[in-house]
Amino acid sequence: MKYQAPVDDMMFLIEEWLGIERLTGLPGFEDLDSDALRFMLEEAGRFCASELLPINATGDAVGAVLDSGEVRTPPGFREAYRKFVEGGWTSIDSDPEYGGQGLPRLLQFMVDEMLAACNLAFKLYTELSHGAGHLVAASASEDLRRRYLPNMIAGRWTGTMCLTEPHCGTDLGLLNTRATPQPDGSYRINGTKIFITSGDHDLTENIVHLVLARVDGAPAGSHGISTFLVPRNHVREDGSVGERNSVKTGSLEHKMGIRGSATAMLHFEDATGYLVGEENRGLVAMFTMMNIERITVGIQGLGIAEIACQNALDYACERLQSRAPEPRPDPSKRADPLVYHPEIRRMLLRMRSQIEGGRALAIYTALHTDLMHRAPSPEERKGAADTVALLTPIVKSYLSDLAVTSSLSAQQVFGGHGYIREWGMEQLVRDSRITPIYEGTNEVQALDLVTRKLSLDGGRLVDAEFSRWARFLEAARKDRELEGIIGPAAAAFERLADATGCMRQRVLEDDAAARGAATEFQRLFALTTVAILWAQVVAAISGKQGEIYERKRKLARFYMSHVLPETIALHKVITEGAEDLAEFDAASLTGQVRA
Amino acid sequence: MKYQAPVDDMMFLIEEWLGIERLTGLPGFEDLDSDALRFMLEEAGRFCASELLPINATGDAVGAVLDSGEVRTPPGFREAYRKFVEGGWTSIDSDPEYGGQGLPRLLQFMVDEMLAACNLAFKLYTELSHGAGHLVAASASEDLRRRYLPNMIAGRWTGTMCLTEPHCGTDLGLLNTRATPQPDGSYRINGTKIFITSGDHDLTENIVHLVLARVDGAPAGSHGISTFLVPRNHVREDGSVGERNSVKTGSLEHKMGIRGSATAMLHFEDATGYLVGEENRGLVAMFTMMNIERITVGIQGLGIAEIACQNALDYACERLQSRAPEPRPDPSKRADPLVYHPEIRRMLLRMRSQIEGGRALAIYTALHTDLMHRAPSPEERKGAADTVALLTPIVKSYLSDLAVTSSLSAQQVFGGHGYIREWGMEQLVRDSRITPIYEGTNEVQALDLVTRKLSLDGGRLVDAEFSRWARFLEAARKDRELEGIIGPAAAAFERLADATGCMRQRVLEDDAAARGAATEFQRLFALTTVAILWAQVVAAISGKQGEIYERKRKLARFYMSHVLPETIALHKVITEGAEDLAEFDAASLTGQVRA
Repeated sequence: MKYQAPVDDMMFLIEEWLGIERLTGLPGFEDLDSDALRFMLEEAGRFCASELLPINATGDAVGAVLDSGEVRTPPGFREAYRKFVEGGWTSIDSDPEYGGQGLPRLLQFMVDEMLAACNLAFKLYTELSHGAGHLVAASASEDLRRRYLPNMIAGRWTGTMCLTEPHCGTDLGLLNTRATPQPDGSYRINGTKIFITSGDHDLTENIVHLVLARVDGAPAGSHGISTFLVPRNHVREDGSVGERNSVKTGSLEHKMGIRGSATAMLHFEDATGYLVGEENRGLVAMFTMMNIERITVGIQGLGIAEIACQNALDYACERLQSRAPEPRPDPSKRADPLVYHPEIRRMLLRMRSQIEGGRALAIYTALHTDLMHRAPSPEERKGAADTVALLTPIVKSYLSDLAVTSSLSAQQVFGGHGYIREWGMEQLVRDSRITPIYEGTNEVQALDLVTRKLSLDGGRLVDAEFSRWARFLEAARKDRELEGIIGPAAAAFERLADATGCMRQRVLEDDAAARGAATEFQRLFALTTVAILWAQVVAAISGKQGEIYERKRKLARFYMSHVLPETIALHKVITEGAEDLAEFDAASLTGQVRA
Repeated sequence: MKYQAPVDDMMFLIEEWLGIERLTGLPGFEDLDSDALRFMLEEAGRFCASELLPINATGDAVGAVLDSGEVRTPPGFREAYRKFVEGGWTSIDSDPEYGGQGLPRLLQFMVDEMLAACNLAFKLYTELSHGAGHLVAASASEDLRRRYLPNMIAGRWTGTMCLTEPHCGTDLGLLNTRATPQPDGSYRINGTKIFITSGDHDLTENIVHLVLARVDGAPAGSHGISTFLVPRNHVREDGSVGERNSVKTGSLEHKMGIRGSATAMLHFEDATGYLVGEENRGLVAMFTMMNIERITVGIQGLGIAEIACQNALDYACERLQSRAPEPRPDPSKRADPLVYHPEIRRMLLRMRSQIEGGRALAIYTALHTDLMHRAPSPEERKGAADTVALLTPIVKSYLSDLAVTSSLSAQQVFGGHGYIREWGMEQLVRDSRITPIYEGTNEVQALDLVTRKLSLDGGRLVDAEFSRWARFLEAARKDRELEGIIGPAAAAFERLADATGCMRQRVLEDDAAARGAATEFQRLFALTTVAILWAQVVAAISGKQGEIYERKRKLARFYMSHVLPETIALHKVITEGAEDLAEFDAASLTGQVRA
């Protein structure tokens, strides 16, 4: 497996489309410029390709192992983690007051893409730690922050998110873990948590668990949940790491992929925990962090799609098999490279056009996570927060689905060789497959989009985004260079607008019909968003001549003619399919669906 | 994992739609009736669920192992194989003259579905053996038949197909294995074959390899290839098994799935082989067998889709999570079964409607494999052979893709639990993933459809099938019970007919454009075929009242409104997308596709 970090494409999108000044003009980022940003991205790309990619296949083959109560990470992970920490990669966008570098969240997301491409299992040891740090920074008391945050930001300790229990994943309102207040202000935590990413490992001397639990006497449901900080090892007054807290690792999961990542079942047995934020308000703070995490999962998907596509292309250029149509590269040979076969080229271009459009979506959303905190005016900050809220389920679902379809497609390019371990393609399929599932399945994202985001603030989020799109399309309509691009994008937008009206109506009148079409609606929304962003990218380079600009225009047209037509089918299913779905109520299904 | 063989649905399709007399009216099948057929299917279902399903997960976990030159199958496989042989499951449709039971090929295919559902890795030890037996029966000399066939049919020995070499899979014309004639009429075989299913194992005392090789001095390319029978162990004059032939097992592949199946690299080093059929005509006989094998691979996919769907439904009925829309099954509970959530129900119904439509496709095609050999008139036999030829790429590609999408979808219903080993869903994804790859990738199937089948005999195959469909649709148009079914099916058929005209033109004028849209065309063809067959099934039960009939009608309508709209998008991509694909010639792609 090879990997070349897509730094050029990232910088292209920032410089030629979004404008670097939208980032460097923000308070706190004054010292940043294009050269510095490119330098950091190239460093990150080098680190990922040279340190993380080489240990990805062995990490999968050996896996994380629980041995006599201790978790062992795969060969090379400890050494790579040490270099990761030394390189400062744990603290990119964290608060300088606690040792962070205070760089843009956008940079973090772009590095996230590279990390996920080269070694998702490794990345997970650092990813939720990073999220946990942000949660502590945002919600914990000054005392907890002082004691834990610098070590988390510096990567000396890692963090976890302990949400899921055996009987509840999506529906956290059902959770049973209990917290009993103690006279010293701490709590005793009792309960079992499952699927805890990096729940235990040998990379650092301590682990900081953020645990959702119910204080004794708290209301049932999601309004009785609080967040607690529960260190694996106690932390002494002087900040040093003390004896073990009562958190036991019950087992590690045997997973389809990301096998180098330790996914633990944790038993909290009278463990000592500290309240983070207010009692019974635990879900609010947790979900602020989770929403950012959902964007990260989408970006993980983008990274895997990218490395899958790169390697499929390499293989397609090298593997000679059968005769391609004229013209052929070397008529003296008895077979041509796969890339000369149009049916293979189509597969590569489907991936490529969705990946580069998907990167526009990712970077656009990522920029707005900085804008929502740092834009000068409250209106701009609110507008940016709205864009992030609306696009979070789109980024998460579209890019994670793209990871799976692209790695399947890349595997298909390899034929039988894609099915065996040595080429790495089958690992990408297995690793990518978690992304549509974790941090809220893509079906949960669709419900968030349809039942919450569509109607939030009276529908303001959608209306604002749609108005911007409409203005852009109107302005771009006359650009001759955008022929084959604006037309299809505008047609898809009409379908989306119509479907949005239909879904809003259903949310009010027929909840079952709304939910039954939510996943298709989310996909229609995503394909159309990517089309609009592709059109904006190409509009931004209008008039520019040169290979890279031509290539982008051709790829945008390919997306419009080969990917976007799916929106026609989706629109039809959404607007006309409700009745046939309603024919099957659940009761009839349970008895009858089986043949 | 549970499994209930879909005997009722199989019998429904045969009795209520196709008509059992189409089978029992054929010469040789006079003794067969509905009761006997159902009895055998139920026996097969019981065997698969009770003997093969329980060893499927362990087979995956342990895998087939090469140890000091000997291949060991996973725990339980030897015992299950013994019972499989004792039950007579190796000889269903084989020639009674050599010990076969002479039962319909259709029955074999239905049993194939059950075997693949419960344990694809196990099935593969028997499947290619069955194909090899048919090839020996059809092409080998009387002497070879007498010596090898009874043992193969009885399952005492198994067979393999040795085609692929390291540098050639799809493109067999490139193969290098050599055959040198010996004075005694035998040949010395030298070469290396890879990806040989059941290439070595411990289930039987001998293995019969059918090997493609090039006789010294034979022409280059596909016209210089011959087929040889190369036993792992020599067979003595008295028929007993002698010492080892010079066939060495180099290694076993580490595969994504079907890990219980031994996929071997075999070195033939001056091995003794016997010519099967004529010199330089090896590919013809091999492809007769391979074409049937392609149908079987599709049916494997159907089996995996079925068991994935069954288990997802079971889980959805049991797992309580979040509140569903009204009405709820038990308002006192704090959460409802997943199946009450419309977004989950939609996933189950998408699977279900495609699986039952797919089974109609499978059984329709399977029946024609019997008709093409046994129908009374030459015209009927030729017509049936045409149908089989045309539908082979459709069955292979549609049902293997369905296996992957259905197992992914079933896994998604399980959420995080679908990603870990213990529920079995992730194994189904890994096992199913081979089906779109082996026996000709689905892209190769698409090329077969577009560049061969469309124009075979001046297009007679397609024209004949389309005429039948048109007559059926015209006749059914007035049936009020078929509302919501005939309309969409007829519209899809119009799109297919139009796209067929377009593709025929391209085959003549622009090969690259034809090939570049071949995969989409194949999918359009498949979705439309299934729609027509669904409509025929429902037309056959017109007027009948009762739960099972109502259910079939509702499921057919669901297919039309939720699955079939994809054909609109496909038609557009096929007919309008060629120009944008042509923008990317291979040369530009190699340098530029990477960002």
